[in-house]
Amino acid sequence: MTYLLNSPGDFAAEAVRGLVAAHGELLVEVPGGVARATQTPQGQPALVIGGGSGHYPAFAGWVGPGMGHGAPCGNVFSSPAASEVYSVVRNAENGGGVILGFGNYAGDVLHFGLAAEKLRHEGIDVRIVTVSDDIASNGPENHRDRRGVAGDLPVFKIAGAAIEAGADLDEAERVAWKANDATRSFGLAFNGCTLPGADEPLFHVDKGQMGVGLGIHGEPGVRDDRIGSAAETADLLLDQLLTEEPPRGENGYDGRVAVILNGLGTVKYEELFVVYGRIAERLEEKGLTAVRPEVGEYVTSLDMAGLSLTLVFLDDELEKLWLAPVETPAYRRGAMPDADRSPRTGVWNAAEAEIPRASQDSRVCAQSIAAVLETFQRVCADNEAELGRLDAVAGDGDHGQGMSFGSRGAARAARAAVDEGAGARTTLLLAGQAWADAAGGTSGALWGAALTSAGGAYSDTENADDRNVVDAISAGIDAVIRLGGAKPGDKTMVDAALPFRDAMEEAFETEAGPAITAAARVARDAADRTADITARLGRARVLGEKSVGTPDPGALSFSMLMTALGEHLTR
Amino acid sequence: MTYLLNSPGDFAAEAVRGLVAAHGELLVEVPGGVARATQTPQGQPALVIGGGSGHYPAFAGWVGPGMGHGAPCGNVFSSPAASEVYSVVRNAENGGGVILGFGNYAGDVLHFGLAAEKLRHEGIDVRIVTVSDDIASNGPENHRDRRGVAGDLPVFKIAGAAIEAGADLDEAERVAWKANDATRSFGLAFNGCTLPGADEPLFHVDKGQMGVGLGIHGEPGVRDDRIGSAAETADLLLDQLLTEEPPRGENGYDGRVAVILNGLGTVKYEELFVVYGRIAERLEEKGLTAVRPEVGEYVTSLDMAGLSLTLVFLDDELEKLWLAPVETPAYRRGAMPDADRSPRTGVWNAAEAEIPRASQDSRVCAQSIAAVLETFQRVCADNEAELGRLDAVAGDGDHGQGMSFGSRGAARAARAAVDEGAGARTTLLLAGQAWADAAGGTSGALWGAALTSAGGAYSDTENADDRNVVDAISAGIDAVIRLGGAKPGDKTMVDAALPFRDAMEEAFETEAGPAITAAARVARDAADRTADITARLGRARVLGEKSVGTPDPGALSFSMLMTALGEHLTR
Repeated sequence: MTYLLNSPGDFAAEAVRGLVAAHGELLVEVPGGVARATQTPQGQPALVIGGGSGHYPAFAGWVGPGMGHGAPCGNVFSSPAASEVYSVVRNAENGGGVILGFGNYAGDVLHFGLAAEKLRHEGIDVRIVTVSDDIASNGPENHRDRRGVAGDLPVFKIAGAAIEAGADLDEAERVAWKANDATRSFGLAFNGCTLPGADEPLFHVDKGQMGVGLGIHGEPGVRDDRIGSAAETADLLLDQLLTEEPPRGENGYDGRVAVILNGLGTVKYEELFVVYGRIAERLEEKGLTAVRPEVGEYVTSLDMAGLSLTLVFLDDELEKLWLAPVETPAYRRGAMPDADRSPRTGVWNAAEAEIPRASQDSRVCAQSIAAVLETFQRVCADNEAELGRLDAVAGDGDHGQGMSFGSRGAARAARAAVDEGAGARTTLLLAGQAWADAAGGTSGALWGAALTSAGGAYSDTENADDRNVVDAISAGIDAVIRLGGAKPGDKTMVDAALPFRDAMEEAFETEAGPAITAAARVARDAADRTADITARLGRARVLGEKSVGTPDPGALSFSMLMTALGEHLTR
Repeated sequence: MTYLLNSPGDFAAEAVRGLVAAHGELLVEVPGGVARATQTPQGQPALVIGGGSGHYPAFAGWVGPGMGHGAPCGNVFSSPAASEVYSVVRNAENGGGVILGFGNYAGDVLHFGLAAEKLRHEGIDVRIVTVSDDIASNGPENHRDRRGVAGDLPVFKIAGAAIEAGADLDEAERVAWKANDATRSFGLAFNGCTLPGADEPLFHVDKGQMGVGLGIHGEPGVRDDRIGSAAETADLLLDQLLTEEPPRGENGYDGRVAVILNGLGTVKYEELFVVYGRIAERLEEKGLTAVRPEVGEYVTSLDMAGLSLTLVFLDDELEKLWLAPVETPAYRRGAMPDADRSPRTGVWNAAEAEIPRASQDSRVCAQSIAAVLETFQRVCADNEAELGRLDAVAGDGDHGQGMSFGSRGAARAARAAVDEGAGARTTLLLAGQAWADAAGGTSGALWGAALTSAGGAYSDTENADDRNVVDAISAGIDAVIRLGGAKPGDKTMVDAALPFRDAMEEAFETEAGPAITAAARVARDAADRTADITARLGRARVLGEKSVGTPDPGALSFSMLMTALGEHLTR
């Protein structure tokens, strides 16, 4: 149960405010999250870590010398928006590039990825490290495709220590991936947690039973089982992890392991220590040495009843970094070496960001872009009900509203940018961010990414021609594929967008309008044909069978907007 | 719910073992609890802190440089036994005396007090500091009579810092009391916690309601109320505490406060931060400065749903000590200055303790003592059923069993000591500890203290006469009064013991036996007269009215044993 809140909608933001109020010596609040209260040294890579709220100390509790440089803070169990990630990076990065570290979840991949697209277009070197330690979520051959759980702690601790020790961006990224590749976690849940403002837990586990391998947001586990004794529980967790122990004596690993026994919320300290006592015995039996074990609450899930065990198979490099000093609100160890920790002097705020100067040609082009987005807004509004109805068949019914909100946000942002003299590139970047922010959800982030990447095909100073239009659309579609991770046949927007792109490239000679119109017909046919497919991705995967007979609303809305774009450009 | 355990009886001990396994760099397990893994420097006062288990990080999680030197660990929500306190002190003390710090609860007062009696008889300077910060438990005029809750953290942190900075025992005791006198806490509970192995919570709070001022073991609060918003909750806690704010500008206090917002178990971090955000605003409005606030779980109650707010009204001395470095398993801050932290070289274990050499005279006297205790054992066994029946009228019915177990334990320990050549003093000290250990409960601790203090009237080397017998009994009765805190008329053992002592002292000339026999008649009359009294103390206070018409079983058993003693000595 979540007992204390003012309003559910403000819960996560108010928690961040309270955290910063309590830890002003380490943190400042910045738009979208928190950053270190001290300046990142010039040229030092920034480690920006995040994910949804509800997991404290992950992630904002780990910002400080020796660990994170900043943390965008999403709503409870929801990825931060791309604009929040972007804003925190702008406040944390100081010329050394940035590592975006987060658990491997679709929403985070999308929103951090979208932020990365935009940052890269602005010349910032961005590396993405997705933590993927949960062995219950995928096989060992797909380690990097697993979801991230308490492995966040050692991966970010080790990456942060490498940076504090002087690693550059390549080196920090290498170490972070190395730590992730050496980290394995396995968890159990005995009961669900309650979201702020909700009356009922997110899920239930039957009394006396446990969800084995159940995820930190209640993702289904591998099986249900009877709760055993503390010793049996310890054995279950450890034995499962040790199936993936690397060979000793190879690659610098020789039986030394970092151990984290993590409580998810209401399995309390004494219980964890009883379990740990058995783990320590078993490790010794197996000839393993626990290096500075941690037993406590590190990656929580509100008041979920559960625990997880994490092992990091160490070599000398990882061990040294695991043991290095760190000073954050929730994780402290040893004494930080002296260093220049001057207070930061200002906070970057999107609302105060300046519009780059643009050429007259580019401003004219930006006018056209704003007009296109206004057309999109109209089409989405006209089709909102229909798209919602289609989405409700096997999804959560919000696609119409998401497209409507997103396109309106993008059109307004574009018009405001144009009014302030923005060029084509800046107008698209701002519109992309606004679409993602206004729409929320997966399709919002993908459309935001599409506009952002389309912006990369333009400049604020040079003239643009019809080739730029086609290139921009192709870049946008590439971004959707890259970030969304959907393949043809998954019953998503990609099933319309890929044939569209091929048709457009083939049809294009000198005029974009007719080529897009022709390709939009292909897209519409392809969208209609998605009615034959069973949905496999996203929320619809649960209700996949129900989706047969109904076209994918995302594919359909794509074809609608491309039809409108073709008409607009041909007028 | 407590989900993970092996057996309820082993839970607390296994938790200690797991804690030490996880924190071997800081802790060693010693009989009865934990001590620092490093030697206490010669002549440094030792801070030994404790109380029941189930409150982690309190208390074992706070042992390490800058805070505790050792922690006896009781069962869940039960005071450690006196022998556990004693054993931990023997492992922590190194010539500088000891401060016993614990929350002000009857059981802890008794068992730590009994250990102190024994330690003092052995020449160790012992100071007792009872933390009493819970303003819901008594009025401001009785601050030191309040019970202790999360104020344990700042009081022990500050006392430990003073010792680390070089304070001697007087100075450390002064600072600890000063910190306690400056500390106020107020708490709320939304639901109860479940003891290991139990199916149902210890208590329930109705859904949507909160127990205002409810204690960390479920002690009744001042009222029930509807759960308000996070902001209302913050205001309630803060306003209540600020009714006891001392005048600013006096005694070095000028509006600077240490702030601890403590979660009891299942009120999680984000909720605490939402509440803290409001507290920070209100503190600022009131012109108060929060000094290094702490928001998290510090004094828990297993999985109880609740929180408490603690303020320490600081002067410069307290602030400096509050901010000083500390390094313990669960509480770390800053960098500990370099110091000699040599690993400890051994562990003191009662089972291996040597019996001091004794004179022939004293060994003969010890034989008599062992014989008396065997007489006590027989009398208690004969009357076990009757004493149990009387206790069941308004108590928990265990007095007969407690006396039987306790006297048997004492008799066996005395006989074993005599067989190893112990003198009178050592025999009584060992018997006293054994009585308390074997009996458990209040009467066990009081009889243990009586025997221990009686031992102080003897020596292991000098001869003893009948005057020693009378002095020993008087000293034992004094200890019962000192530790038990009962006054005449409370319907306890004291109602028989006080008139007994007066009558014995008056009747004594040269022979103890007749004086004791005469006084035992007075004691029996007084015990019988307790039937007219309504019980006010201990468990019986709840059922006090039911006790009228039944004599107090503790007063009765006392008179029985004194009757037997008189007969034994007159034979």
